[in-house]
Amino acid sequence: MRGEFQIIADFFAPLAAGAPGAEGLRNDAAVFDAAPGHSVVVTVDAMVEGVHFLSDDPPGSVGRKLLRVNLSDLAAMGARPVGYLLAAAFSKRIDDPWIQAFVDGLAADQRDFGVHLFGGDTVSTPGPLTLSLTAFGDVPVGRALPRAGAKAGDLVYVSGTIGDGALGLKALRGDLENQSEADTAYLAGRYRLPTPRVALGQALSAQGLATAALDVSDGLVADLGHICETSGLAAEVEAAKVPLSTAAERVLGRDPGLRAAVLTGGDDYELLFTVSPDRAAEVADLAARLGLPLARIGTMQPGAGVRVVDDSGRPLDLPRAGWSHF
Amino acid sequence: MRGEFQIIADFFAPLAAGAPGAEGLRNDAAVFDAAPGHSVVVTVDAMVEGVHFLSDDPPGSVGRKLLRVNLSDLAAMGARPVGYLLAAAFSKRIDDPWIQAFVDGLAADQRDFGVHLFGGDTVSTPGPLTLSLTAFGDVPVGRALPRAGAKAGDLVYVSGTIGDGALGLKALRGDLENQSEADTAYLAGRYRLPTPRVALGQALSAQGLATAALDVSDGLVADLGHICETSGLAAEVEAAKVPLSTAAERVLGRDPGLRAAVLTGGDDYELLFTVSPDRAAEVADLAARLGLPLARIGTMQPGAGVRVVDDSGRPLDLPRAGWSHF
Repeated sequence: MRGEFQIIADFFAPLAAGAPGAEGLRNDAAVFDAAPGHSVVVTVDAMVEGVHFLSDDPPGSVGRKLLRVNLSDLAAMGARPVGYLLAAAFSKRIDDPWIQAFVDGLAADQRDFGVHLFGGDTVSTPGPLTLSLTAFGDVPVGRALPRAGAKAGDLVYVSGTIGDGALGLKALRGDLENQSEADTAYLAGRYRLPTPRVALGQALSAQGLATAALDVSDGLVADLGHICETSGLAAEVEAAKVPLSTAAERVLGRDPGLRAAVLTGGDDYELLFTVSPDRAAEVADLAARLGLPLARIGTMQPGAGVRVVDDSGRPLDLPRAGWSHF
Repeated sequence: MRGEFQIIADFFAPLAAGAPGAEGLRNDAAVFDAAPGHSVVVTVDAMVEGVHFLSDDPPGSVGRKLLRVNLSDLAAMGARPVGYLLAAAFSKRIDDPWIQAFVDGLAADQRDFGVHLFGGDTVSTPGPLTLSLTAFGDVPVGRALPRAGAKAGDLVYVSGTIGDGALGLKALRGDLENQSEADTAYLAGRYRLPTPRVALGQALSAQGLATAALDVSDGLVADLGHICETSGLAAEVEAAKVPLSTAAERVLGRDPGLRAAVLTGGDDYELLFTVSPDRAAEVADLAARLGLPLARIGTMQPGAGVRVVDDSGRPLDLPRAGWSHF
């Protein structure tokens, strides 16, 4: 087995090549400069094998998902991603080919999202593979997207489509029947490789459009619940307006009982945000400019809690409020 | 068992109370501002139960050590610590009293070092308790302490005393014979609660004194080897000048064979730095001002590698170059 220094030099140093402040990972700490007049935004997420990802997930997608989950947190703040630190506790089964595939996945995402590895720590563990990734970026001072600023009457929007991640996990576990291979591949791909809405977050910040925003990681209902709590409001969501992918629509067509999984399942990494109703046209313009659907799914109201209603206005009975790994 | 949100609200949110940008840990990401004209410095370290700390270590010291190890990395860059993120994978045995003691330890160090918790992630693991901590701080642009700038003829200095951490671990494992209780407690304390040399790092940066610097985590010889490699030089260290605590002196008096463990054992978290010989008086002044011994232990020379010599100039035979957990 290579030592820690050799693993860093052989596999991870190339990921730091584009970041002068990372000094080729030879230092224990890295230096970077936020753009002038910008605050720094930091976030961390951890993943444990067997809890947050499957042991037979492709190593490349494991690293990319962890990076993307963090970039999604930056997006929810309106931040521009700059770089990341990686702490990896490698179990005995992790060999050179695994690490190489893991690193190749990160390298691909570094190119796509314009970020670099700035540093990290690699240790060994007698337990399952455990990874934690800290991402950092910057945002103009005072322009970080708020979580607590929604007002009664604000419109609730969500980007992309909801439920693919939760259904993708079910598909990977073989819990979905009569699935086409193409739909399974699509949903599994959405679970393994979510798309952080980085450009959307930055645009919402630049235009000052969102009164509250976060990314949907715990589930649409639970995350909207967070906005309600911090803003001291209720929210009503029209179930029929929650945007679904074609693959997810086909799953719900066969098994309408899975709607709850879609609404509460989590792992979407879409942005959920509230907007004053007089600025709805700007949201439509932004969607067109980014080529990203932004669906109006409900409204903020006085009160507390999240209510999801069907076409006739009757509240849906949702068995659980959100996704918790703990 | 409490859920993740409840654990954060009950135990960790109080640690974020002094950091407005942490927003009470209700956001997935946190915001902070480096001082004007300052770069941001980031570092991460991970610890696994049974690998980096002992299962029966007091929970308070586990958290504090992880924080201090990271603050030591910031000190080695000359940075002012600002805050940290914590990713914790809790095993089943971790209960409320454990978390409370862990948090109490962090709270004590937050007061001592002027830092705050800005965010984190808590997950569950079927394996051993695994923690990773990302610390961040700032340093005036261009003033981060270099690792690669040593010149031939530069003097090699180290702060505090060397070897206490390695001997402390041996003492805790019962590997030291005829120890007094007081010496065991002192050495164990140095192992469990190293003192990051934050003020020293900032002073070296402010005065532009160090041509290269790092903190001694892998062992004095291995870490000086890092300076040699990156500076393209050799180093000669006089073993008799390596500063020892009274407790360590007594251990070596009984068992001189432990000198190698002192020189290569690691876990010291003292600063090791090189200084141009014409500035030696400034180092002495700085030591007096900080009330921290700064010992001149050797010189940088043309060539490669680290040589440790005894009183008569004969090289010591050191069995291993450094400490590796991997």
